[in-house]
Formats: sequence, structure tokens, C-alpha cells
Amino acid sequence: MNRVMRHSISACALGVGLAMAVNAMAGPDTDKELLDVLLKKGTITRSEYDELLKTTEDEVGVSTHGGRLRFKSADAEFEVGGRLMVDTAIFDNNDDLHNGSEIRRARLFMSGEVYDNWKFKLQTDFAGNEVTLKDAYIRYTGLEYADITVGNFKEPWSLEELTSSKYITFMERALPVEAFAPSRRLGIGGHSHSDGGLNWTAGYGVFGDSVNADNNDGSNEGSGTAVRLTMAPIAEKGRVVHFGGYGEWRSPTDSEVRYRARPEAHIANERLVDTGTINNVDHTVKWGLEAAAVMGPFSLQGEYMRVDNDVNGGDDPTFSGWYAYGSWFLTGEPRAYKTSSGTFDRVKPKSIVGKGGIGAWELGTRFSSIDLNDAGITGGKEQDLTIGLNWYATPTIRFMANYIKVMDLTDPQNVTDDSEPNIFEMRAQIDF
Amino acid sequence: MNRVMRHSISACALGVGLAMAVNAMAGPDTDKELLDVLLKKGTITRSEYDELLKTTEDEVGVSTHGGRLRFKSADAEFEVGGRLMVDTAIFDNNDDLHNGSEIRRARLFMSGEVYDNWKFKLQTDFAGNEVTLKDAYIRYTGLEYADITVGNFKEPWSLEELTSSKYITFMERALPVEAFAPSRRLGIGGHSHSDGGLNWTAGYGVFGDSVNADNNDGSNEGSGTAVRLTMAPIAEKGRVVHFGGYGEWRSPTDSEVRYRARPEAHIANERLVDTGTINNVDHTVKWGLEAAAVMGPFSLQGEYMRVDNDVNGGDDPTFSGWYAYGSWFLTGEPRAYKTSSGTFDRVKPKSIVGKGGIGAWELGTRFSSIDLNDAGITGGKEQDLTIGLNWYATPTIRFMANYIKVMDLTDPQNVTDDSEPNIFEMRAQIDF
Amino acid sequence: MNRVMRHSISACALGVGLAMAVNAMAGPDTDKELLDVLLKKGTITRSEYDELLKTTEDEVGVSTHGGRLRFKSADAEFEVGGRLMVDTAIFDNNDDLHNGSEIRRARLFMSGEVYDNWKFKLQTDFAGNEVTLKDAYIRYTGLEYADITVGNFKEPWSLEELTSSKYITFMERALPVEAFAPSRRLGIGGHSHSDGGLNWTAGYGVFGDSVNADNNDGSNEGSGTAVRLTMAPIAEKGRVVHFGGYGEWRSPTDSEVRYRARPEAHIANERLVDTGTINNVDHTVKWGLEAAAVMGPFSLQGEYMRVDNDVNGGDDPTFSGWYAYGSWFLTGEPRAYKTSSGTFDRVKPKSIVGKGGIGAWELGTRFSSIDLNDAGITGGKEQDLTIGLNWYATPTIRFMANYIKVMDLTDPQNVTDDSEPNIFEMRAQIDF
Repeated sequence: MNRVMRHSISACALGVGLAMAVNAMAGPDTDKELLDVLLKKGTITRSEYDELLKTTEDEVGVSTHGGRLRFKSADAEFEVGGRLMVDTAIFDNNDDLHNGSEIRRARLFMSGEVYDNWKFKLQTDFAGNEVTLKDAYIRYTGLEYADITVGNFKEPWSLEELTSSKYITFMERALPVEAFAPSRRLGIGGHSHSDGGLNWTAGYGVFGDSVNADNNDGSNEGSGTAVRLTMAPIAEKGRVVHFGGYGEWRSPTDSEVRYRARPEAHIANERLVDTGTINNVDHTVKWGLEAAAVMGPFSLQGEYMRVDNDVNGGDDPTFSGWYAYGSWFLTGEPRAYKTSSGTFDRVKPKSIVGKGGIGAWELGTRFSSIDLNDAGITGGKEQDLTIGLNWYATPTIRFMANYIKVMDLTDPQNVTDDSEPNIFEMRAQIDF
Repeated sequence: MNRVMRHSISACALGVGLAMAVNAMAGPDTDKELLDVLLKKGTITRSEYDELLKTTEDEVGVSTHGGRLRFKSADAEFEVGGRLMVDTAIFDNNDDLHNGSEIRRARLFMSGEVYDNWKFKLQTDFAGNEVTLKDAYIRYTGLEYADITVGNFKEPWSLEELTSSKYITFMERALPVEAFAPSRRLGIGGHSHSDGGLNWTAGYGVFGDSVNADNNDGSNEGSGTAVRLTMAPIAEKGRVVHFGGYGEWRSPTDSEVRYRARPEAHIANERLVDTGTINNVDHTVKWGLEAAAVMGPFSLQGEYMRVDNDVNGGDDPTFSGWYAYGSWFLTGEPRAYKTSSGTFDRVKPKSIVGKGGIGAWELGTRFSSIDLNDAGITGGKEQDLTIGLNWYATPTIRFMANYIKVMDLTDPQNVTDDSEPNIFEMRAQIDF
Repeated sequence: MNRVMRHSISACALGVGLAMAVNAMAGPDTDKELLDVLLKKGTITRSEYDELLKTTEDEVGVSTHGGRLRFKSADAEFEVGGRLMVDTAIFDNNDDLHNGSEIRRARLFMSGEVYDNWKFKLQTDFAGNEVTLKDAYIRYTGLEYADITVGNFKEPWSLEELTSSKYITFMERALPVEAFAPSRRLGIGGHSHSDGGLNWTAGYGVFGDSVNADNNDGSNEGSGTAVRLTMAPIAEKGRVVHFGGYGEWRSPTDSEVRYRARPEAHIANERLVDTGTINNVDHTVKWGLEAAAVMGPFSLQGEYMRVDNDVNGGDDPTFSGWYAYGSWFLTGEPRAYKTSSGTFDRVKPKSIVGKGGIGAWELGTRFSSIDLNDAGITGGKEQDLTIGLNWYATPTIRFMANYIKVMDLTDPQNVTDDSEPNIFEMRAQIDF
């Protein structure tokens, strides 16, 4: 390298300062700004300006800002990355629920925007040595009032579900979210939102089944329609008030449904509440309400959700659940809210571990409740109290510890001999 | 960024125009051109020229041109990308063939060329939440008359099979291609082609089994030899005449073969024609003939293919099939032909959707036929008529709609109660 | 491109030499060197220097040096790559062990360092159309005396096991290494090493089970503690003396263990030695000794390893094995040793195939031995003599041929009817 440097210097030293700066450009937008300045100063002529402007279209800026690898040119943008979460869990009734460790998520993705208005993402998870397609979609952003997405992506249903696993406050989503949320399905959907004002968002779409539902087994693929509406009349940094509601009507695959949840610990080898398969279901209606608030380092979040099952020639069981939690950043950071999607976003610690800082520290406590007993179905009841401590070493690296006390458990499967487990679990997480 | 810009300007504004342009270079070849010009103009001296020339070897150009991410330096080149296809299908006899949707292909790859003459590609498919290794090879391109490839790649057999799924005219390849083409196998092969003249190509190789054929199950891995010869006496843009032939001799794994095909809809949960497993097969000979022509926006393509099975101590069944199709680009684009491989290539629409254009629109119709009845084997007969409409929104994004009428079906498995299904299917596709 | 070039030239030709050179920079460290020079020469002022220094933090250098794709900025570094190995094997007793070919390894990874002191790697293998998570960890390098790693990575146990499959001398690791080495597990560990002096290294950690051990099957996940200590009193290029020892104490999952090995040919569909599952194992102690030396193009390497199994209420079987080998680079290259890890590293051929060279040629011979008979367990005995020829076409591309003579076989499973197979196997390998 040194040799390279010296040759360059002998050739013409003058341009070098700029050359380095140019490498730092995130893309052609900044180039245009620069050309504007140069034109104004008279350094370049108008015709030179015009010609140079054209050349910026082929430039590609490379960025590692924020610990992520991105490429950007005038009409294309790419990102290559992933996430890794390593978990361990201890159960006090280790005879029923076995202590252990696992890779919770191991994902790689490539995403981008090409030809100005076409976005895509292809993301796979390799946890447990199995492949699971996650986001896998094509999106058109050229319409004025809505972005259209086709492929595999999350149905617009539940604030907690739609907030990325990279950013959720506790290690696992709350009991009713795990049991009821449709999560990703193959479908086509739209997303609209206001710029400012009430900061409303609207997500809507029609969806088939999940990717791994093998159509070749002769099953009749179900389909559903979902919609979610949110608003955030206050949405400043550190000051947010958010409300929303959502619903899904679905005709299930092979007229079968099943609702179940682990005790907010993914390593648990048993679900404590589980309806088993319910047959002859004509359709289900799943709906919920959500609210959240951020006041500086404090935040609150909660949801109520309910599932009505319409059974052909039988009783119609209804299940429901809710959760509420509070979070406090001891180091003063506010939870970040994304107005365009109506979900929570990445927290950026004020100081960074490894660069002399202590990172961000967050305390949280959650109460969650689910009732899967109704109309002859005895799926059980459960309430979990969770206390969580999160340490954000950097914006992309987080360590989590959760203590969970299972309470008021009605456990029809007798998994735990009616004892209510205490759980301690920890996670190391990075996204890139 | 603005701060960065201003610092740079204060340092030395002069170099900036060039610095930006240099970022746009695709690689060191263009750098050399530039140095040539500068030397000629006297901007740099001969000794500066020589020294600078050496430095270009370490330069890496980044390109997002055409919606794909590439890296290129003097002696290495890398590409990271993939493809995503999202399908949905409707069958009029939904009791037998179930409507549904799926991710048809979800692939990521990394490929490149290192140390001048060594190429590689590693490509995986994750559709259906399963891993399938696709192209996975090392290639040496340093010989004068042939490129040598070792690894997992397509046997040289059939124009339709060898044309990438990104570029085929209909959503699925024709009935006999699905039933007979060996596709990718582990092997070693050569590829030669003329530069101009008759534009001939020759592909040849010896191949073992497919990647997922687990040798550990105690099976005797089969092996085969394949060759394909093509020529294109006319091969200009919008004016192509192509002929070819191909053959494969194979000793099958465990002396077993099976030929079957879905009704040109991959979501179909049943194959309508299927020989079942044929045992005691000493060897098979598969061969075919191919022809194609492009006349401006019109093109024709067809193949005839046949399989002779040599059964030890039994009758030798022979199966065959053919297809022919025509395509017309309403927007005037010609189908693109690649002389080095004798296959069809990416169509570039004249205008791009999202940038004010309407993309390219293509109408096609195909007739395909297969006969799997012979010498006591009753695999069935089928003829499919397909009408297709393709919309190329950008060079890398395509939407397809196919209507398929199954005809003259002899369906020994009675999958469809002898009814002949009508199928409507659609695809959204991107490659990057 | 030509148009771009010309525009640039007309704008200002002077900066171009430098601009190209800057592209070649590997990162901001070299930029700082350059600014130092420019400041000294008076080309830039001190205040310009200070301001420009700040801008270098956002620069990203792209490198394809050595056939690998890397990105580097002031506080982040990324690498995207993989490896591909294509094997074929012939057995002289083809009735028992079936000839065949396979993709031995097909890996992609993304790794990096973010926020100065945080490293990560996420690597997956797709060989055999199955997913296997390999390195998947987060590492903190900000401590003075140790790097801390959490996730899935190799336990510090055995020189041969810890040397990458890209760099091992023979196609497969020796019999006892395959049978006994714990390889990758979920865990947390530290690694320390001296800078110079005795070149000692210390690896240590506590580990759970492997990634694919599904905790949900109700098994009790085992755990272990491992440590490895090495030193290299001589460690110059072409002159190395290395010693080490290692041990692991483990309480196995479900109190079950099994030791077995293929005959140093992965395509072999049977393991010739195999203890079968041993139950009621309270704990195991696995330990070994290692030594290696490099004398110019010659090198020696060997290990002795032993496993003590503590069975509850039964005899305690002890198994052991060893191997020793010599390697000679006909073309004079020395084996490369990495002092920071106490393992062997990439060999760089003196000349490169495809650029007029012949690459590096290496001859090796290995003797390996394993004894799985003890205390009523009859897992068998085996000794293998291997002769290997390696051709390093480039630093990242290697072709290997191994002849293996199985000897002194006691084969309790009667896989081969007590005959001792001769094996010939070959590999084509690239990493990127």
C-alpha cells in the first residue's frame, strides 16, 4: 500500500483531499450538492457541471455506517446483512422443561431498491439447522398513496408482532402474540401512511398460507384478509403516543386451527397452553387493540387480542389474551418510534462499550395473560410476569436477561404436574 | 455529509470532478484507457504513467448497473445476488388439484473470477423452506479451446432446460423437458464455442448423481455422459436462427428410473403423467433436437426429445415428447440470444415502469406433448396448450400470467377422474 | 464508460491519478499515512489536515486482494465469502462401500468487526442439501488479556480439528480426530495468546450441545468444559516447533455417547469402526497431546488422543488413537503457522496457475490408528495409511488426491466382510 501511496503523491498530490472525501459520500445526492457548490464558486463551468451531473448516475457509494454494509448509487441500493441471537435458559422444574442453549435466530438477507421504485428483500433463517424463509418480497413504491408488496411478509396484525425481533423489549413476544399472531404469509398487500399530522398508518392485504405449508400434501390452502390502522398524534423523539387496531378474517387451511404458546422461553421443550387441533373451522376472526407511549426514558406498551372461531356444526370457541409492560432506560435513552410503519425501532445508546462508554441499560417488566378455555376446548390458561434487563453495548449489539414467573397456570396437558415454573433466560444478539 | 464536503472543498476543489468519475469506473480496464489519454495529452509523464498503471491492479470498482451488485478489480471479480419468484395458481378441478401460492424460487448466490482464469459460483435455493444446491462449481477459463467446469451444474441437454428460469418464456418448462431433462448433476465438463462464424457451441461432460442423492443410503451412484452441439448461422440482435442436438448415455443409480411431469404448474399437488419407478434399467439414452428463430419482436422455439430405456431381461420402453411455441413482444423488443452458450438471455425492455415507461409486453402460446406409454409401462399421455402474457417492468422484474388447457390426457393414476384441468397461474419475479 | 471518462477529463484532469490510488486504499489507516506525508510536504495546512482526518472515518475501502471480498472503514470491517469442495471417491470393495461423488462443503458466510472491538461471524454449510450452522458467534476483543466469544464455535481441542478444512493436509482429518473431537458447540469461551516469546496460546470455555441437538425432543442437554494450551518456541516463516495439550470434561446429553469414524473418506456410506450408543455415561474426559514442526518445505505433525468414559454402575471403557504425518512441498513452500491461534494457515504458492506458474505441489503421508475396543465395548480397531498429493493452483484453489490403505481392521459390524478396502479419492476446492 505504501508504494501505491507514494506513486500517487508523485503523480499529483493536489486532488487527494477531495478524493478521500468523495469516497465517504453515501451516494449521488451528496455529489449533486457538491457540484452545486463548485458551480457557484466558479470552480467548474455550467457545461462541465451538466456533464458531470450525468456521470454521477453510475457512482456507487459504500457505507459501513452503524455497523451495516450498504451500497448506493443513483438508481440502485443494496444491503447485505443478517442477525444472530444466542440463547440459554434455566427452568426450575428441569424434569419437565429442560435447561439448554440454542441459536435462536441466524439470518442472512440481501435487500435493495432497483430502478428507483422497486424494492426487494430475501431473508432466510438457519436456526436449528433448518431453513425458514422470512421476508421474501417484491415491493413497488412508485404510487403516490400506497406501497404494494407481493411475496412472503408479515400480515399487518399487532404492534408487538410487527416490531422486529431485533428491537422487542423482552426476549420473546407476549403469550397471546405468540399464540394468535398470523406473522408471515404469502400474499399481496398495501401500506399507506401520512407524513406528519396524526402520523396514521394503514396496512392491508390478502394472504394465503405460510411458505412451508406444502401444497403438495393435498391440503386446501386457506386464505385471509388483514388490516391494521394506527395513529400517533404525538411522535417526537422521546415523546410518543400511539394507538391502533387490527383484524384478520381467515378461512383456515383444511379447516383446522391450533393455538398454543411456550412460556415466553423458546428453549422450553413444551407449550404449557395448547388447544390442540380444532377441526371443521369455517373461518376465524382475529382482532386486537394496541397502545403505547414514550415519555423520555420511560415507555408503556400494551395490547388486547381476541380470536373468534366459527365451527361448522359446533360451538364457537372464543379465546383472548392481553399484555402490558413498562420500560425504563437507566441511561436516559428513549425508545425509538417509526412513524411510517407505526412500530418501534432501533435504540441508539448514548455511549458505546469498547469505545469507553457503558452502553444503554434498560429495565422492563411485563404482565401477559392468555385464556384458551372456551366452548368445550380446554387449551389452558396462563399468566406470566417477566422482569427484564437489557444492555445495549452498541446500537447493533444487545445482551438480554429475563426472569419469568409463570402464574395461574391451568395446564391441561399436565406438562408440568401443575407446578408453575420459574424461568431464567439470557441472550446475546447482533445484527449486521 | 455536508461537513465532509465543505472540508474537502477547502482542501482542494480541483480534483473533485475526476474523483467522482473514477468511482464510476467499472474496473481497471477503463482506468488504463484513461491513463492512455492523459499520457497522450501530456497531463502525466511516461514515468508517472508507468507507476500509476501498477497501482490500478489493486483498485476495486463497485457497480450496481442493471440492478445487480458487482465488484471488479484487475485480477478478481465478485457478484452477490439472487432471485425471487412468487407464484399463485388456480385449478378448475380444485378437488383434485388444490389452488394455492408458493415461493417458487428463492435463491442467493456468490460468484466470481479470481486469479484471472478461475471462476466459481455457489448458489442455493431456499424455496419451500428446503435447501437445494444449484450451481456450485469451479471453472478454469485459461485454456484456449475450452472452459473446464467441475462441481454441480447443468448437463448440456436441451435449449429450454439450459435457458435460465429467469428468462424462459412460460412459467414452467414444457412437459417433456420437465420429465426428461437431467438438469444439474455432479460432474466435470467442458464448453467450447466459436467467436462468430457459425456461432457453434459444444458442451460435453461426465456426470454422477444429483447433490441430494445421499450416497450413505447404500445406493450405487449412477453415472452419465452428455453432449450438446448447437449452431446459430444467423445471430444478430433481433435476427437469430439456431439449431442443435444433444444426447446423454446414463447408467442410472440403483438401476432405477422414473419419468413424470406436473401439468406445467408447479403448485399442482399431483403429476398427471408418471411412469412410476422402472427397475432393472441397465442404461438409458436420452436425446433431442432443438431449433429456434428470432425475427424482430417475433420468435419461435421448439424441441423434440426421446428416451430409450434398456431394461435387463425385459421390454425396452421408449418415451418421447415435443413442444413448440411462438412469442411476440407487443412493445417491439427482440428475444436476446447468447452465442457463447447457445441459449436465450435477458430481455431488456425499451422503457421502464416507475421511470415513466410501460415496460415490455410479450404474448406467447405453446403446445407441448408427452407420451409415457410403451412396452407395458402406462405412465400416461398429455398435451398442454398454454397462453402466456409477460410484463417486463424492468430488465430484472417480470410479471407472468399463464393459462393452461390440459388436453388428450390419459391419466393412469386417475388423479383427476379423467377430467382435463384448466389452470390459471401468475408469477412475480425479480433477480438481483 | 468512455463518455464518463471524457467528461471527467474535460472537467479537471489533474486529480485523477490520486483518485485512482485512493480507491486502492485498504482503509483509513493508510489515509492517515498519506495525510501525514502531505502535511509534511506542505501540500495541505495543519487545519486542513485536522479536518480531513475527521472525514476519513466514513471512508470504506473495498478489497479483492487474495481472491476474497472485504470492506473496511475506520470502525467497521466486513467480509462476505464461502468455500466449495467437490469430492469423488472409488473403493475397491464397491459392494460394501459405494463409489460416488458429492459436494463435501458448500459454505457461505458473512463476518465483520463493528464498533472497533466487536466481531461476529455467521457461516452456514449447504452440503448434501442440508443446512448446518458452522461458526455463528459474537466476539469481544476489547479486553487486554483475552478475547471472549459467545455462540457456536469449535471447542479448543486438537490441532488437526482446529486447523480449517481449507488448510488441512489430507482430505479428511485422521481417524481419532473424527471419532473424538467435539468440534463446534454452543458456548462461551476465551482465547489468549502471547505476542512473541514462546508464542503460547490458551483457549478455554464452557459449552452446551451442538446446534442441531433439538432441545424440544425432551432431552437433557449436556455440557462440557474444555481447555487447550500450546506454545511455539520457534515460529518463523519456514521454521516452526509447536507443542500443545488439551482436555475436555463433559456430562453428555441424555448420558449417551457414541464414537465412530469413516475410513478417512467422507463418501464412504459406512463407518468401519463404531461403538454404537453407550448409555448411562456420567461423564467423559477427553484429552490429547499435539506436536508439529516445519523445516522449510518439510513438516511433521502428530497427535495422541484418549477418551475415558465414566459409566454409572458399569465398566469404564477407554478409547484412544493417534496419527502422525509428514509433508513435503516439492515447490519449496513452507506450511504457514498462525501464532495467535496455534494452528496451521493458508499456504501461498510461489507461482500461480493461469498466470504462467505451476502452483505449489505437496506430497504427504499419514499413519493413523484408532482402538474402540475396551471394557466390553467392541467398536473395532483400524489403522489407515494415506498417501496424498496436493496441487495449490492459487492461494485459494486446491486439488487433492488421496490413496488410503485400511489396515489391521477389526470390523465388528462386518461392513466389509473383514476385507480391508483400498480407497482413492479426489477433491477440487476453492475458498472466497
